[in-house]
Amino acid sequence: MSEKLELQLARGFRDFPPAEKILREDVINIIKEAFEIYGYSPLETPTIERLDVLEAKFGAGSDSDAVSEIYRFKDQGKRDLGLRYEFTFALARYIGMNPQTKLPFKRYQIGSVFRDGPIKAGRYREFYQCDVDVVGVSSTLADAEIISLLSFVFKKLNLDVVIEINSRKLLEDIMEVIEIPKDKKITTIITIDKLKKIGRKEVKKELILKGIAEEKCEKLLEVLLVEGSNLEKLEKIKNAIGDSKVANLKRGVEELTELFSYLESFKVDYLFLPSLARGLGYYTGPIYEVFLKNTIIMDSSIAGGGRWDNMIGKYLNKEESSFPATGVSFGLEPIMEIIKKRDGLGSSTTAKLFVIPIGKENINSAISITQKIREQNIPTIIDLMNKSVSKNLDYADKLKIPFVGFLGNDEIKENRIKIKNLMTGKEELLEVSCLKDFFFK
Amino acid sequence: MSEKLELQLARGFRDFPPAEKILREDVINIIKEAFEIYGYSPLETPTIERLDVLEAKFGAGSDSDAVSEIYRFKDQGKRDLGLRYEFTFALARYIGMNPQTKLPFKRYQIGSVFRDGPIKAGRYREFYQCDVDVVGVSSTLADAEIISLLSFVFKKLNLDVVIEINSRKLLEDIMEVIEIPKDKKITTIITIDKLKKIGRKEVKKELILKGIAEEKCEKLLEVLLVEGSNLEKLEKIKNAIGDSKVANLKRGVEELTELFSYLESFKVDYLFLPSLARGLGYYTGPIYEVFLKNTIIMDSSIAGGGRWDNMIGKYLNKEESSFPATGVSFGLEPIMEIIKKRDGLGSSTTAKLFVIPIGKENINSAISITQKIREQNIPTIIDLMNKSVSKNLDYADKLKIPFVGFLGNDEIKENRIKIKNLMTGKEELLEVSCLKDFFFK
Repeated sequence: MSEKLELQLARGFRDFPPAEKILREDVINIIKEAFEIYGYSPLETPTIERLDVLEAKFGAGSDSDAVSEIYRFKDQGKRDLGLRYEFTFALARYIGMNPQTKLPFKRYQIGSVFRDGPIKAGRYREFYQCDVDVVGVSSTLADAEIISLLSFVFKKLNLDVVIEINSRKLLEDIMEVIEIPKDKKITTIITIDKLKKIGRKEVKKELILKGIAEEKCEKLLEVLLVEGSNLEKLEKIKNAIGDSKVANLKRGVEELTELFSYLESFKVDYLFLPSLARGLGYYTGPIYEVFLKNTIIMDSSIAGGGRWDNMIGKYLNKEESSFPATGVSFGLEPIMEIIKKRDGLGSSTTAKLFVIPIGKENINSAISITQKIREQNIPTIIDLMNKSVSKNLDYADKLKIPFVGFLGNDEIKENRIKIKNLMTGKEELLEVSCLKDFFFK
Repeated sequence: MSEKLELQLARGFRDFPPAEKILREDVINIIKEAFEIYGYSPLETPTIERLDVLEAKFGAGSDSDAVSEIYRFKDQGKRDLGLRYEFTFALARYIGMNPQTKLPFKRYQIGSVFRDGPIKAGRYREFYQCDVDVVGVSSTLADAEIISLLSFVFKKLNLDVVIEINSRKLLEDIMEVIEIPKDKKITTIITIDKLKKIGRKEVKKELILKGIAEEKCEKLLEVLLVEGSNLEKLEKIKNAIGDSKVANLKRGVEELTELFSYLESFKVDYLFLPSLARGLGYYTGPIYEVFLKNTIIMDSSIAGGGRWDNMIGKYLNKEESSFPATGVSFGLEPIMEIIKKRDGLGSSTTAKLFVIPIGKENINSAISITQKIREQNIPTIIDLMNKSVSKNLDYADKLKIPFVGFLGNDEIKENRIKIKNLMTGKEELLEVSCLKDFFFK
């Protein structure tokens, strides 16, 4: 039987060897710390959920692709189950099952999600998402805080980004004013979303093909492509809407006016992009999307989110927007790709010191000393195989351990260790009991 | 459709609300830090693996229960897949697929594993394991280091434990000397494993029922139940084996003599328990199992492991023990149960400070000040809902946030904040720019 076994990963899956996993953990810890500085707390939901909960339409929004890509199976009791493909539905389920939860509920969740979809370069079937949401606040103050957190995280990661902002309400208002037919609104939004990619001319062509009158297309594109500072753009759109016959349609303008004022207090740089649409999902208010400034390195979005006021209420068969919510999802995979390109991979171990006993007879003394070093919380490896010094140095070099420590008869007698910096070659004879000062100075 | 949806978790699964997840993360971080101090590095393997790799007999040892409890499914390409039910097979597969890996390979892996098995109190179908193993070292020095790490982790967790140690080789040697029939060895080990639970008399009864001659039972139990210090017990067993006709059968004694000498250097407390058997899995040498000293709180093992020299070689169709390995798995779930009982749950948030703006007109100033506090890396929540002071205090109390900070006109003007300790009631007026000293002093 062992002859036939192919040693392979399942298609679309990957290992993270130590060097890669260490870098991932570093990045995740930076993101986690940022979430916690903003007062968001961790929630963990199971990897496996009931299929009916996963498939609930308002869970996936109209993201029917994601639902069709759920890994489905039954347990031995023949219950229909699936693997989670995102975290938002799980947060909605959690609040629904725990209605006593104190609001606002500020939570983050970081972990694997699964999609049985097509595999392309950089796309895997198990990947990490880092979600942060606040439930219970209808004020745009919550959206402003989330946008500020976006900016804070990317500053901590040293990534230069553009945060694009728009409002779903504003998009709807504009279409209402321009009198885009009700049954054409969704398809219009889909086309508008392509403005950045295919440009004004192509978008207009597509809209006309979809049956939107040319003058309406012109008017729509004119409004969506207003120029100027964020506030100037908003003012121009406000005037465009104000001129129309349905002057009370200013929900979006009001929402963004308030949001921009809060963002001013948060001191966040952002770009108001009236044509930003973010798919067709469950969003009900402000929407946001983050791109790396250097789009040559990465041109797809690396984080995005928005307000989703209706999902939890629908789950609970309560009034819509009885549980307002807003939040964002960080794409850990594109972020890791960027950081790997920028920094390269580091060490294959978190060990800072590799202890090399000189002479087999010294192994027991070397163990005792290594333990004294570990008690100072210094990540330390000791040669377990009685290898030669040159083989040990080669090992330390391959694993990129920054320091080696030699323990010969003299050092052991004096309770010292000869520390060598493998980068500079510099050697120092140090008291074992004082290594903490050396490593954590 | 939404009417019919039951808001339920899948059977055997659970959420970890923030207070629980925060405590779990604290414990995991202590374990991780201990692993890294010993120079073990993180590896991450996928949640989903090929079913043939999961089912390979040498992967599961003879743990056929675990294999029968694998969640099985197909992807859209009709490939047979399953969810991982432990980590050892994945380490073996990883080494097999990456034969260039520098040895010794010291790795840890922490994460969810899945078993579609019976549900009892405290048993779930998704649970965490924390595995730490070293591949490439045949010397018992590696076993000694792993046992020392066991002790180190439980000291860091402040748990008083007994580490029981035995050798599979010793068990086999003893059975050989006593001339337990070859085809009865496995069943004999299964019965011996029950000594602690059912006692000498019952074990003897069971052995006789299984067809072991009474005098052999007596001799076996006599050897396994020798008394004295660890070294005295080993000496007695050595003599018992030495008296026999197969005097060269001392692999186990030699192995343990060496191991105990290393453990002396590591300064580890342990209990040599000649009857410890640890199932029938893939173990080939020293085995270890950890119990809480206070067995009233928890009487099942909370960590266990041993040497598994043959699995990777078998995977690779290479000589057995060409990739010697030893390691241990920590049961995070029983450890969490104990710690929850001991410490209770803590705060539902990692926030240290809750900022309460006094007066709606001060919200924008309060945001600016909150941002100055967050820039000092102090986990901070600000009221997003313009609630009354009493409602805000109630919220801070329910979430167990240790400090609140009031921002009224005077404080804002002076760039100060009135900090109140919710435990002691003590109030202090502090400079916003100096809060770091207050919180991290």
